Amino acid sequence: MRPNEPVPEWRVRRWVGDGPASLASLRGRVVIVHAFQMLCPGCIYRGIPQAVRLHERLGGDAVVLGLHTVFEHHDAMGDASLEAFLAELRVPFPVGVDAHETPRSHPWTMRRWGLRGTPSTVVIDRAGRLAWERFGSEDDLDVGLRLGQLLGAASEGCDGEVCPA
Amino acid sequence: MRPNEPVPEWRVRRWVGDGPASLASLRGRVVIVHAFQMLCPGCIYRGIPQAVRLHERLGGDAVVLGLHTVFEHHDAMGDASLEAFLAELRVPFPVGVDAHETPRSHPWTMRRWGLRGTPSTVVIDRAGRLAWERFGSEDDLDVGLRLGQLLGAASEGCDGEVCPA
Amino acid sequence: MRPNEPVPEWRVRRWVGDGPASLASLRGRVVIVHAFQMLCPGCIYRGIPQAVRLHERLGGDAVVLGLHTVFEHHDAMGDASLEAFLAELRVPFPVGVDAHETPRSHPWTMRRWGLRGTPSTVVIDRAGRLAWERFGSEDDLDVGLRLGQLLGAASEGCDGEVCPA
Amino acid sequence: MRPNEPVPEWRVRRWVGDGPASLASLRGRVVIVHAFQMLCPGCIYRGIPQAVRLHERLGGDAVVLGLHTVFEHHDAMGDASLEAFLAELRVPFPVGVDAHETPRSHPWTMRRWGLRGTPSTVVIDRAGRLAWERFGSEDDLDVGLRLGQLLGAASEGCDGEVCPA
Repeated sequence: MRPNEPVPEWRVRRWVGDGPASLASLRGRVVIVHAFQMLCPGCIYRGIPQAVRLHERLGGDAVVLGLHTVFEHHDAMGDASLEAFLAELRVPFPVGVDAHETPRSHPWTMRRWGLRGTPSTVVIDRAGRLAWERFGSEDDLDVGLRLGQLLGAASEGCDGEVCPA
Repeated sequence: MRPNEPVPEWRVRRWVGDGPASLASLRGRVVIVHAFQMLCPGCIYRGIPQAVRLHERLGGDAVVLGLHTVFEHHDAMGDASLEAFLAELRVPFPVGVDAHETPRSHPWTMRRWGLRGTPSTVVIDRAGRLAWERFGSEDDLDVGLRLGQLLGAASEGCDGEVCPA
Repeated sequence: MRPNEPVPEWRVRRWVGDGPASLASLRGRVVIVHAFQMLCPGCIYRGIPQAVRLHERLGGDAVVLGLHTVFEHHDAMGDASLEAFLAELRVPFPVGVDAHETPRSHPWTMRRWGLRGTPSTVVIDRAGRLAWERFGSEDDLDVGLRLGQLLGAASEGCDGEVCPA
Repeated sequence: MRPNEPVPEWRVRRWVGDGPASLASLRGRVVIVHAFQMLCPGCIYRGIPQAVRLHERLGGDAVVLGLHTVFEHHDAMGDASLEAFLAELRVPFPVGVDAHETPRSHPWTMRRWGLRGTPSTVVIDRAGRLAWERFGSEDDLDVGLRLGQLLGAASEGCDGEVCPA
């Protein structure tokens, strides 16, 4: 994926929580996808807490979603484990389980989006195009400044017909 | 001061570091003024470190300045003390010393701007108008989101003649 | 369990890592048992990192062990999940899996020792007696002072025959 | 100063707060002296907050004291500045001002004790001998373990007559 190009639809096996119908259905809103694995230390200690803080602060023009992209320890991160993990950590946003074509392959959306590992953050603008993609962690001030600028840019990036839903 | 109204010029007795000629001379840039006292715990532990982090991240379209607004312990926070403090803490942005009309009065700019205490942050938009003023601390994510949105709003708030310098 | 009374032997189904033969075999050393569940937030964010820091600092006269005491979300915290969790978080000390008499009962050692939840820390003196038991978290300075005093007390608590192994 | 040798009496110009009559008068108690300068970043951000946490936790058999050892920026850290600083940061233990033989010399106690800079911590056992001296910061767990062991060692280090006051 390249900046400013359309982000392909995800392929999600199921949602924990009330997930959206599709990425396309979120057109007109900024979408922050936090791709993680429940047993990845960078996700547990930095990525997920930051995504939760973002969810608490962002209003209706932006949405935070999780994407569980398991590419290792498949037996350790099945549905029951993920559900318990999300409940115990009180993750308040919906989390989609990235689809696998074969049981131990890299998950579908992760491959299609070219993600390099976890945690990764994919930020999609109001027109459904890639704003940026980041592997690893950024501190709160960097994330806030970057995301604030995207949110402040109003609908500048939209071309009339497609943008505001 | 009210949001969207012009911010009055400061009155500064001297600058530590290379301060700007005036507030007016910064028209066209977002100005973040961190008003502090060198012996205020909220300034030492939260406000100043955050202002330094902002200074490190913001480019030419935004400027971070300190304003030393002493309204208590006047003998403890004189010029020699302030200079040593700024050198030891490696504060990288210019700091203006708010003027006093009489030696122990509330300092001039603090009164004129209606600041309630320290730390206070005053954010001024590209047209020289108050974006917001805050007494106390905010966490990095809140500050980043808020400031990012102002920076992302481009020159939308400017009315042709006055705005970009 | 009461302070200064002998701590009963644990009953552990298996060890991840190189566990000791028994509690009795550790007589003469101070034993710190960190009882946790891999999906308990207080364990993930405070208890386990602190136990790791203790393990890194303590020498041969003290030993840190984990005890996985699962009493909820049994399906989510099976052997494969625990092993992946310990590997990913690089937990450097051996972890025993507390035994269950029936699949969903409270685990055996947890009941026998009267632990109230996770994280719990059980500290056993050189003579095999309970020094203290704590439910929840303590900050590093409290833990250090308390444990340091026990370690500094030399073998005062030992009655000749039984104490140094 | 060497470990286990008697620590020479300090020479203090004045106390802020209710200081002890002398070091000798504290015989029988463990004494933790936190040597600092009010404008030293390592003191402000790590040393002093840790000394305050120690003071809050230690009982009657141990005492925490500050020692203001100014060897630079003498004009910036005079009596008025120090008093305001200690009041604002709510430092709860007495602070002695290390004596100067000439106005800009290294302070007397700092030289006599051979301290290399600030922050330094000097820990004196119940018999008035040096337990250890440390330049710079240590984390809470290290400090707690080390100090706990000294406190736990009872009066082992005392020779009958001189030790308990």
